[in-house]
Amino acid sequence: MSERAAHRVVIVGGGFGGLNAALALRKAPVQVTMIDKRNYHLFQPLLYQVATGGLSPANISAPLRAVLRKQKNCTTLMGEVTAFDMTAQEVVLSDGGRVGFDSLILACGATNNYFNHPEWEAVAPGLKSIEEATDIRSRILTAFELAERESDPIVRQKLLTFVVVGGGPTGVELCGAICELAHSTMKNDFRNIDPRATRILLIDSGERVLSSFPEKLSLAAMKSLAKMGVEVISNTRVVQIHDEYVVISRNKGPEEIVPAEVSIWAAGVKASPLGKMVADLTGCTTDRGGRVQVEPDMSLRGHPNLFVIGDMMTMPWKDGLALPGVSPVAMQQGAFVARLIDRRLAGLAHPGSFRYWDKGSMATIGRASAIVDAGFLRFSGFFAWLAWLFVHIAFLIQFENRLLVMSQWFWNYITRNRYARLITGNNRDI
Amino acid sequence: MSERAAHRVVIVGGGFGGLNAALALRKAPVQVTMIDKRNYHLFQPLLYQVATGGLSPANISAPLRAVLRKQKNCTTLMGEVTAFDMTAQEVVLSDGGRVGFDSLILACGATNNYFNHPEWEAVAPGLKSIEEATDIRSRILTAFELAERESDPIVRQKLLTFVVVGGGPTGVELCGAICELAHSTMKNDFRNIDPRATRILLIDSGERVLSSFPEKLSLAAMKSLAKMGVEVISNTRVVQIHDEYVVISRNKGPEEIVPAEVSIWAAGVKASPLGKMVADLTGCTTDRGGRVQVEPDMSLRGHPNLFVIGDMMTMPWKDGLALPGVSPVAMQQGAFVARLIDRRLAGLAHPGSFRYWDKGSMATIGRASAIVDAGFLRFSGFFAWLAWLFVHIAFLIQFENRLLVMSQWFWNYITRNRYARLITGNNRDI
Repeated sequence: MSERAAHRVVIVGGGFGGLNAALALRKAPVQVTMIDKRNYHLFQPLLYQVATGGLSPANISAPLRAVLRKQKNCTTLMGEVTAFDMTAQEVVLSDGGRVGFDSLILACGATNNYFNHPEWEAVAPGLKSIEEATDIRSRILTAFELAERESDPIVRQKLLTFVVVGGGPTGVELCGAICELAHSTMKNDFRNIDPRATRILLIDSGERVLSSFPEKLSLAAMKSLAKMGVEVISNTRVVQIHDEYVVISRNKGPEEIVPAEVSIWAAGVKASPLGKMVADLTGCTTDRGGRVQVEPDMSLRGHPNLFVIGDMMTMPWKDGLALPGVSPVAMQQGAFVARLIDRRLAGLAHPGSFRYWDKGSMATIGRASAIVDAGFLRFSGFFAWLAWLFVHIAFLIQFENRLLVMSQWFWNYITRNRYARLITGNNRDI
Repeated sequence: MSERAAHRVVIVGGGFGGLNAALALRKAPVQVTMIDKRNYHLFQPLLYQVATGGLSPANISAPLRAVLRKQKNCTTLMGEVTAFDMTAQEVVLSDGGRVGFDSLILACGATNNYFNHPEWEAVAPGLKSIEEATDIRSRILTAFELAERESDPIVRQKLLTFVVVGGGPTGVELCGAICELAHSTMKNDFRNIDPRATRILLIDSGERVLSSFPEKLSLAAMKSLAKMGVEVISNTRVVQIHDEYVVISRNKGPEEIVPAEVSIWAAGVKASPLGKMVADLTGCTTDRGGRVQVEPDMSLRGHPNLFVIGDMMTMPWKDGLALPGVSPVAMQQGAFVARLIDRRLAGLAHPGSFRYWDKGSMATIGRASAIVDAGFLRFSGFFAWLAWLFVHIAFLIQFENRLLVMSQWFWNYITRNRYARLITGNNRDI
């Protein structure tokens, strides 16, 4: 097969799914083009550490070009895909450039879902990108700085109140980390305020936080959070989010005003808008979160060469649930689609339906506290935290900077310090 | 002496001079207030490493509160001083807040000096802050990304041309680091361009770069730069800087257009505008760069309790030259003023005139190349680079993260990699 005639695979998105697909195609007789609007792969599960000053953005990122450098059949392009030309089989970039494909893998992930309140985005950033993480970091640290200069005790209390909306893993991890920052790292840093007076509110509409975990673990997490000093407010609906306060309703009760300087959104995500776009073009349907309904092999019905993977797709799983939006699903799907394309080109049998190998899930609550659910094995506490740390750092291995991250983490653990406590950006209030 | 009656020392600026003054006052019977518009001390000499993806911002920063945490007689405030009330002896913050002082130390450093071309700031950022460094990093990396997608060879050449204006240590270090990034780190990262074709132009109006060094070392540096592939264009005036090209005049010759995607300004600095403000209020004079003429003890004439130190002041030195704007001057002046105040309060004799202890100077050119001028000892090459590395990392020691920086550096050196190659911020072109 000549170089020119190689089957062209275009992958849009260099997250867990897309990057894994590209890597899995390294020996296939294809020409891969990886397109991402960023020039780096981001290890999103650790973004909360950036938002709370424990790690630097570069610690959890890897330049896509560096990761794919040695893969000769792969070209990386930084660009934003804004449209598809299905007739010509091309993706269209924001500057009008076009990239032709024979197979297309969409792996653009998810963004924050504010449901019917897009106006909340400005006052309650989510935690999906480096810019959002450093923005949250600046907001949190600036609140402490303003509190140190404030003489009015009511205003000071407002400045030292942080609201996190949504009790999934991101919300819980964020609360735990803010708690450590305020109650431990910075406890001797101020002269006029006691950072230990900081209030951290975790608001969730359900009965329990981490509700996707077994009840026992979820309750252990809530206990752990309470012990750290996080106020878990469950069964509570967020009615409104403003610059300086949040309106909530507990147990369908009357509206209540909670003055808070910083609000953070961790209550939900929706698929990249490219999902809806491609669904409309191909006659597929999407769910409420904009996720594309895919076939059991992640292709689109009637379009065996178009694939949607990871947080952009939805597919039935078990117990009436859909596949969860977690990185192992995306990674396994990336590898599956790569294998499917490879086998198809070799004239081998179709690999059948994708089956998710669920190795379990884990969430960390704070310093030396986590929960692990590996099916037969469920535990919480310090050893769960070690397991969490091990798995997360092991996954960074492919980014070659694991040693640095590990030493940073070890140092933070020993000293209870967080060195990346920088207020950066040009939108600072002070 | 009761707590209430303690002598109030206000220090504006947490750079080398101000921070050193605060630390030197730790045992003095004073109440220190450190005011900075940032919440961190920045190790500016390594900013060029951030601009070229070798280090993360947090690697070269230390939260001021963390550094001053244990110093009980010191309060840190994040705030921007915008005016002085000399009658009431108060500094005025941007939000109207006031902080009273008995002694005032101004140590606000310098900003980029575009001389009579303020419009160049937008097209040719300088390298004085973290935001500028990450902006330059994004510009450099984006240029490569655009070049990879460009088919017109003339446009591609423009995209791969970088102009650094000013051949002082910052300009030289930056050119060396861009060179390493393009010619070594990224050499296998692209498919359509060869990053080794990158042109890096260092433009200087003088005869030689690093002109403050002895001629022999300066010539060694120029040789080293040329060997790396940097085009040193001396005796050349920059007539105009535009978005996509620079107009220069060599040896007073005709104007010449150099198409270049990225221009960086390293041609000069001026004192913080607070210098001029305080000079006007006290009847002192400033030099062309806005530096305040101070007495031999850094006080202002007729105002023995007002001090200006570091890059904000000017003072005669030797051979008709003024003291250079380097960190050792600022640090020694900070310690000197602290001692002066301490002795004055104890009723001891005035310490006399400040005398700068010049331990020599050094500049790095690139990987394993530097020059060192320690007076009697002058050398260049690999050992000069080791000396440079040792001194710079040793000075980071007080920030406790030296081990991490050293391991990061060691890793970069071994692998020729630069992991902090992130295009961040919301102003990306792609």
